[in-house]
Amino acid sequence: MAPPVKPASADELAKQQRSISVAEFFEKNKHLLGFDSPTRGIVTTVKEAIDNALDACEEAGVLPDIYLGIFRMEGDIFKVVVEDNGPGIVPDNIPYVFGKLLYGSRFHQIRQSRGQQGIGISAAVLYAQLTSGRPTLVISRCGSDRPAYRFRIQIKTETNEPEILEKEETTWDRIHGTRIEIEFKSSLTARKRLVEYLRYTSVVNPHARIRVELDGEAILFDRASDEPIIPPQAILPHPHGVELGELKRIAAGSTEPLELFLVNSFSRVGQKTATEILGLAGLKPNKKASTLSPDDLAKLQVAMQQAKVPPPLGGQCLSPIGEVLIRQGLEKEYEFDFCSARTRPASVYHGHPFIVEAAIGYGGKLESEGTARIMRFANRVPLMYQQGACAITGCISSVNWKTYSISQSGLPTGPVLLLIHVASTNVPFTSESKDAIASIPDIEREVTLALQELGRDLKTFLSRRDKSRQTEERARAICAIIPEIAEKISETIEKPVPDISPIEGQIMKRLVAKKKTENGTVTISLQNYTAHALDLTLYIITSDDLKKAEPEAVFIEEMDPDHSGVWQIRLAAGENWRVTYQGTGNGMIDIRGVDEKKKVVVDLDRS
Amino acid sequence: MAPPVKPASADELAKQQRSISVAEFFEKNKHLLGFDSPTRGIVTTVKEAIDNALDACEEAGVLPDIYLGIFRMEGDIFKVVVEDNGPGIVPDNIPYVFGKLLYGSRFHQIRQSRGQQGIGISAAVLYAQLTSGRPTLVISRCGSDRPAYRFRIQIKTETNEPEILEKEETTWDRIHGTRIEIEFKSSLTARKRLVEYLRYTSVVNPHARIRVELDGEAILFDRASDEPIIPPQAILPHPHGVELGELKRIAAGSTEPLELFLVNSFSRVGQKTATEILGLAGLKPNKKASTLSPDDLAKLQVAMQQAKVPPPLGGQCLSPIGEVLIRQGLEKEYEFDFCSARTRPASVYHGHPFIVEAAIGYGGKLESEGTARIMRFANRVPLMYQQGACAITGCISSVNWKTYSISQSGLPTGPVLLLIHVASTNVPFTSESKDAIASIPDIEREVTLALQELGRDLKTFLSRRDKSRQTEERARAICAIIPEIAEKISETIEKPVPDISPIEGQIMKRLVAKKKTENGTVTISLQNYTAHALDLTLYIITSDDLKKAEPEAVFIEEMDPDHSGVWQIRLAAGENWRVTYQGTGNGMIDIRGVDEKKKVVVDLDRS
Repeated sequence: MAPPVKPASADELAKQQRSISVAEFFEKNKHLLGFDSPTRGIVTTVKEAIDNALDACEEAGVLPDIYLGIFRMEGDIFKVVVEDNGPGIVPDNIPYVFGKLLYGSRFHQIRQSRGQQGIGISAAVLYAQLTSGRPTLVISRCGSDRPAYRFRIQIKTETNEPEILEKEETTWDRIHGTRIEIEFKSSLTARKRLVEYLRYTSVVNPHARIRVELDGEAILFDRASDEPIIPPQAILPHPHGVELGELKRIAAGSTEPLELFLVNSFSRVGQKTATEILGLAGLKPNKKASTLSPDDLAKLQVAMQQAKVPPPLGGQCLSPIGEVLIRQGLEKEYEFDFCSARTRPASVYHGHPFIVEAAIGYGGKLESEGTARIMRFANRVPLMYQQGACAITGCISSVNWKTYSISQSGLPTGPVLLLIHVASTNVPFTSESKDAIASIPDIEREVTLALQELGRDLKTFLSRRDKSRQTEERARAICAIIPEIAEKISETIEKPVPDISPIEGQIMKRLVAKKKTENGTVTISLQNYTAHALDLTLYIITSDDLKKAEPEAVFIEEMDPDHSGVWQIRLAAGENWRVTYQGTGNGMIDIRGVDEKKKVVVDLDRS
Repeated sequence: MAPPVKPASADELAKQQRSISVAEFFEKNKHLLGFDSPTRGIVTTVKEAIDNALDACEEAGVLPDIYLGIFRMEGDIFKVVVEDNGPGIVPDNIPYVFGKLLYGSRFHQIRQSRGQQGIGISAAVLYAQLTSGRPTLVISRCGSDRPAYRFRIQIKTETNEPEILEKEETTWDRIHGTRIEIEFKSSLTARKRLVEYLRYTSVVNPHARIRVELDGEAILFDRASDEPIIPPQAILPHPHGVELGELKRIAAGSTEPLELFLVNSFSRVGQKTATEILGLAGLKPNKKASTLSPDDLAKLQVAMQQAKVPPPLGGQCLSPIGEVLIRQGLEKEYEFDFCSARTRPASVYHGHPFIVEAAIGYGGKLESEGTARIMRFANRVPLMYQQGACAITGCISSVNWKTYSISQSGLPTGPVLLLIHVASTNVPFTSESKDAIASIPDIEREVTLALQELGRDLKTFLSRRDKSRQTEERARAICAIIPEIAEKISETIEKPVPDISPIEGQIMKRLVAKKKTENGTVTISLQNYTAHALDLTLYIITSDDLKKAEPEAVFIEEMDPDHSGVWQIRLAAGENWRVTYQGTGNGMIDIRGVDEKKKVVVDLDRS
């Protein structure tokens, strides 16, 4: 039996009260950082390291050239190596960047970046030392005039401070960049998801080259564009998103009179807006911001919310992917029957600018059954887990897809792919692992609007396709009875059955090729009944002599016993063309440059 | 046009790299703590304050007596006051408990508690100063021999350290306890959810009294039990859940030889298990734990996982609610037709003990249409948000409810309520706001098993109910034709139609009461055809004289012109009873003590 429990007094409880280091907190709650299982740990680690590499290259204006190596060590220990050609990290800061949670360069800046929190890569270091007991190796170099440094680092969990186990100058063949080697307990069960993460990353970062060595297999995700991304610029806070506590802090640090303070400390505030704000607050423009009483500050904050201020300029601090690149990336992969993309105008939630981009793909390599494929991105980073908990998924489910001729059971079903990218200076994730976007009404509205626009596009495509299918079916029906009609009429008027292929071609909107031999003269004629110009290549393989054909072939090859001749012909819509030569009409013809379905070849010599 | 962006060098980036205080981090990511909107802020604040109060009372072995006041101040500022009769907090620690994130007494202990992280209440203080600019007031006293102290506290966001704006000795009518007053921007839109949170809290904490003053309205959630909860005891870590990094730390702090170290530092490890572990690891029992090499430590950790160790004792460190209390709490509220509850045996995930409890209710006050009502709890705290993101909801959806005769569309539908309580020394929440439980296979398995057991219980009830309905319908059909049969037979044998009520009573298993007057003698007879003993009260209201009735009435009241008499009768199953008196048989009779549906009263004088 359990011993009786003695109630605790305040003094006894006081002895147990103490600080918790943020490293201790996340070591215990490692699932919050995406380290809930060894299987997932490898995806999270790769993601954090590659996100950092891409951010660093972008900031330095360098085209990213990233190496990822994943090696199975003894037992269930894996080593992940990530190397980039970024600007490098100065040696004094290396221990903190990798050995301290909540340390980074992007947290205090208002602009789009992949990493925001200064947690991710240190969390991987923490997870490594927890599961494998091994410190992390970092090599970094900041330029040709600087040496490379090599560190072995771990985190003192109790204090969240870095512990440097080794630091030395070293030589390195990269002029600038950073290499990290992390060893931890894991498995390759999530291999498919890992490759998917890399492919998705490559789609939305067409300027990056990622070379991968995955447990013996080499994979290259090459760059599709040689334009480096222009890194988004940091902006000042927007007045509509400033809470009282924050205003208090900014004002306390200012030496300026109120009007200047407003213009210089906030985004989109000019002279006129500043005057309006101060008027609403009943405050004098020349009063020092730092001397405001709590009451005055409260009035100022209310006035800042009420004043008309233009929304933040998303174009400056955000870096959307763009409709063209999204479509290119997707079509390369899926060869859709139809694809449409949208980049919505910049919008704002709680003062944070954001842009929603979305794309829909239909048909092609997509499976025709089952739930739609969903690709979620935040700040150009693929979101690989917790689809069900993500606001994006919620928006997709709540759109009425049946309106757009797509079946639905919660999510849309059928050969449909949806890509959604949310870019923001502060993406509201549901947890530190950055897997899912929290449910923020302003963002949900934009996602829904984008999806509805795409739905309308798809509906237009589907109804056009259905219409053209219908037309074709009707034409097919007519063509099926034409021969009978022709025969009947011939009988009645006692004439031979005419060649009905031109009529068929006309109805079906096709290219009709006809070959006929009369009195030792072979005639091959082409009639373009389609609605478009055609660039055609005609091949004739025969034992007849083609050298004297009219018009002349562009190329003749003499083989024994056959010869082949090649003609290149441009035929406008409705135009026709013919070639004649002397002979028996033996052999065969082939025409390239038009879809098989759009071509009727009639060999009258053989019919 | 945006100015051209200058690529950053490593040196420029280094200037931007700096520490992020945990308060800054959570100020920016306040949605992670449940402060995503002013509406929600009030629920989160109340929840954090009341969780703390309940934890403190439990630790001190005190029956919780909690006061909650919510007052609308000027504008959209609300004041939340929470006062408890806990042990109080010593004055030196007050600033840290309320003015520093990640400070607390329960993080480092392995036992079930509501608060675990030392974040919640300080987060509310942070949110208050951010939105209203106002510091938080705390009054606390630790006993009759101590003065009370009054503090005004806020958090220095940049450093996550408390700032004491006021500290003074004061008088207070509570001998021990703590009072907190927090003012922040909010709204009462979530009033219904707030009351729901309090009601649910009261259901799973039957020992607590919570007095509420909600913007002018008083609500009392009184205690249903006078037994204080025995606070769960802290236990040592279980060998199966220890990661290498953690083992390294524990070993470094030990002065003992290995065998003693294992027995004294881990839960469920005795001499025998220690020997087994050391044998597997190939280590000598008398080697000092602190002198182990990294390799030895790794071997030891592997051996600790492999050795057979009994699971942690959940009974010691966990405090489940219990099947009886869960059923009582629910039935009081919903008056179910059927209710069943289960407390599963203690189990373990990643070395953390946990217990799943669940209950199912059917019918009663539940709405008969729509999705089942789901009540989620973790460590006796109701989970009010993010139902969709919770592993519990996932488990409910993936059970095949149709097997248990319940319709389903994702979640089960119909008049069904499901309650699930997960109690653990470390509940794996999906975020710091503690709204949803992360998807951990071991926990999901236990939840699913509990739900399946309950489903079987419900199915048994439903099929019995259907069967008894069927039986009753059949009986009703027979009773409907009995009079006709009786009449037919009477005609044939030329006798008067007999009284068929006893037959009907027998078939329908009812109490049959018959009144008959013959020759100035009134007879009232009762026949108990039910399967149970009945305690009945017979009322007769008549102008006949009841004083000479046989047997005598227990009570007679004489009114003008009528008298009423009362008899109390215990009738075993199958037994009968009668009373006779002289008179005309006028007036009426009434019988209490048996369900209306189970009673047939035949007044032969009137038929």
